[in-house]
Amino acid sequence: MARDSFAVPASVVSMRTRNPIRAIVDNLKVKPNPQKEFISLALGDPTTFGNFKLHPTCVEAVKTQLDSYKANGYPPSVGIEPARAAVAKAYTRPEAPLTAADVILGSGCSDALNLCIGVLANEGQNILLPMPGFSLYETLASSKGIECRFYKLDPARTWEIDLPHLESLVDDNTAAIVVNNPSNPCGSVYSRAHLLDILAVAEKHKLPIIADEIYADMAFAGHEFVPLASLTTTVPILTTSGLAKKYLVPGWRLGWVLIHDRNGAFAEVRKGLLNLTQLILGPNSIIQAALPEILKAPQSFYDETMAQLEKNAAVSRELLAGIPGLNPVFPQGAMYLMLGIDLTVFPSIADDVAFVEKLAEEESVLCLPGKCFRTPGSFIRIVFTPPIDKLESAYKRIREFAARHHV
Amino acid sequence: MARDSFAVPASVVSMRTRNPIRAIVDNLKVKPNPQKEFISLALGDPTTFGNFKLHPTCVEAVKTQLDSYKANGYPPSVGIEPARAAVAKAYTRPEAPLTAADVILGSGCSDALNLCIGVLANEGQNILLPMPGFSLYETLASSKGIECRFYKLDPARTWEIDLPHLESLVDDNTAAIVVNNPSNPCGSVYSRAHLLDILAVAEKHKLPIIADEIYADMAFAGHEFVPLASLTTTVPILTTSGLAKKYLVPGWRLGWVLIHDRNGAFAEVRKGLLNLTQLILGPNSIIQAALPEILKAPQSFYDETMAQLEKNAAVSRELLAGIPGLNPVFPQGAMYLMLGIDLTVFPSIADDVAFVEKLAEEESVLCLPGKCFRTPGSFIRIVFTPPIDKLESAYKRIREFAARHHV
Ligand SMILES: Cc1ncc(COP(=O)(O)O)c(C=O)c1O
Ligand SMILES: Cc1ncc(COP(=O)(O)O)c(C=O)c1O
Repeated sequence: MARDSFAVPASVVSMRTRNPIRAIVDNLKVKPNPQKEFISLALGDPTTFGNFKLHPTCVEAVKTQLDSYKANGYPPSVGIEPARAAVAKAYTRPEAPLTAADVILGSGCSDALNLCIGVLANEGQNILLPMPGFSLYETLASSKGIECRFYKLDPARTWEIDLPHLESLVDDNTAAIVVNNPSNPCGSVYSRAHLLDILAVAEKHKLPIIADEIYADMAFAGHEFVPLASLTTTVPILTTSGLAKKYLVPGWRLGWVLIHDRNGAFAEVRKGLLNLTQLILGPNSIIQAALPEILKAPQSFYDETMAQLEKNAAVSRELLAGIPGLNPVFPQGAMYLMLGIDLTVFPSIADDVAFVEKLAEEESVLCLPGKCFRTPGSFIRIVFTPPIDKLESAYKRIREFAARHHV
Repeated sequence: MARDSFAVPASVVSMRTRNPIRAIVDNLKVKPNPQKEFISLALGDPTTFGNFKLHPTCVEAVKTQLDSYKANGYPPSVGIEPARAAVAKAYTRPEAPLTAADVILGSGCSDALNLCIGVLANEGQNILLPMPGFSLYETLASSKGIECRFYKLDPARTWEIDLPHLESLVDDNTAAIVVNNPSNPCGSVYSRAHLLDILAVAEKHKLPIIADEIYADMAFAGHEFVPLASLTTTVPILTTSGLAKKYLVPGWRLGWVLIHDRNGAFAEVRKGLLNLTQLILGPNSIIQAALPEILKAPQSFYDETMAQLEKNAAVSRELLAGIPGLNPVFPQGAMYLMLGIDLTVFPSIADDVAFVEKLAEEESVLCLPGKCFRTPGSFIRIVFTPPIDKLESAYKRIREFAARHHV
């Protein structure tokens, strides 16, 4: 039977593939004040303002590969061996040893997460996601028909996981827990003790963990980043990370999965991951070939990046403290902080979205509403990577804005 | 109820994501003859031997972007506007006009195909694929639970589509037809007349087409590559292509979808494609930024590539003709040819796989068996991109091998 029209329907999968940020941002009514320079604190891209730059040795490493004319062919779908070996070497720990065979390269940490969620959960199963959390987890899971269950993070304890709540969500259909540390959007860095408590829940329920550590090593003084996998000899963990943040090249789309197998628990998962990499064949070959050199960027490069981030965090701490009606949760790492809004003292502002819109309209400062991350309560997320002068100016305007609308 | 073990199952999707080539190649018993230099005619990667190289202006274009330190951030998930505009400009035709809004960048043509199959078909529906054909179509479709139905190509008519057979496969659950022209593994380039006949079937059944034109423009003298979309004002077509073959950089992972909407048939599909790009965020930003320059590589570059390919095709034609028991179907374009094997005169050889294994063992020449592409009958695929001397040597050995085993 021939159809009688060419109105081509889009697939169910494509229609349920949604990034909740997009839906909110697309509907945000942002009309910046033309009298004031527009400052965005909205984008989780450290390269936007030009103050954070990758190290020249990384550029040189890529150019060397280009000049060789030898790294233009198809790499194996899991990535070339030297690149995988270099990642293994950089991330292996005595307590969580890695070899090249435990590393799979992906097209960004996003792809790495896509592989991990795709291999661990079936349609109809559920995975446990942080709330607030990075919205891509939900996009990836719902695309696959996997149910998202959101566990609460507690702002009063710098966004530690509410473990009883996490545990209450587990059932027979739970396939995995996603743990994001350091966190986007929270800027939290979990203590060793808290990580051990999280592992205990996974252990009790025999649940594998996807540890999204794209902000690995990005912890501020007084806080230590501990790779989750280094704290367990029994819980199988897929760790995801990549070049995006630490190496300041989010556009390069190079990420990886670290397979922290424990007692063979991931034997089948390894095969499944390999299968899934064959769909799009991994990241750019030139960047893969340069990866061993890129990972050797001098320690001073990381130190300078972190010093600059810490300085920006300190400015945030100084200028956002003590503003009536605003309750910042100060960051311990990464490049984000969440600013709580006491709506009871801002009667003209209905919610976080309205706060963001009004702030943009009056002060030309753009943040994302907590709603983008399913944040309970009223928060806005601030990305504190802009140059200090812009940050100071933005914070001054936030202060004035709050004072103006406060009752 | 807590599970009592950490044996983590891999998802159904990951287990059904299989590239049939892999299963065959992994089981191939290839022990090359240590007395003879190993020559592979197996890999569809023109860069392997170093005789096909991208143009230096393309390398320079990438370096310029690296040096700018301005193309390291997140591109939009569909690709940056200048890159999409450049692709639109390069591929627009009066009969099939394109603007930047009709172009979506992907991580290779593989990703572009993944987007197209993913947006057009639902689990449980079917798509029609060429047989023989590029095995990734099957990998992508079966990963999504989409049924693959294989339509026959006729070697006697240089691999034109057996249209009655194609039509016999159509039912109410058919979501799309995949047409690959020029073809891997056949090296065929369809005539305008044949393309019009294909379009008539699509028109009759109101089926959208995925036109995989990754070998666009790679037609030999006497054959003209005609973009399928340029021949219809009614059949909606998603054309996929990329830099891999024509620009000789398969590892760079930059491909695209051209949305040839017809009378709004793809309104929903456009949204679906946009949604799907949000999963992994597209190709490398540096290559995206360089794309407008890359697409401006001088005409002489394409001409030289094609001249070299044609020369290799001519050598193939000369040296593979008239071998008793072997029936080559000579190529009209791309970089492949299919060599038919008359098994009745090779009694010691059971099938195409055995032919490939024995040829490798005795002559150190590796080809892929037709089985990798679901080829009916007995064929092996030859990639004719190696340098002429290697090609000559390989063909000489094939001739000797055939003579030795012929009865
Ligand atoms: C928590 C988290 N995970 C993963 C990603 C994605 O990283 P990539 O750009 O490498 O895909 C991001 C990007 O912002 C992120 O914040
Ligand atoms: C017919 C066909 N389509 C698509 C592709 C994939 O191209 P890409 O490397 O850009 O993913 C290939 C690669 O060999 C191919 O032969």
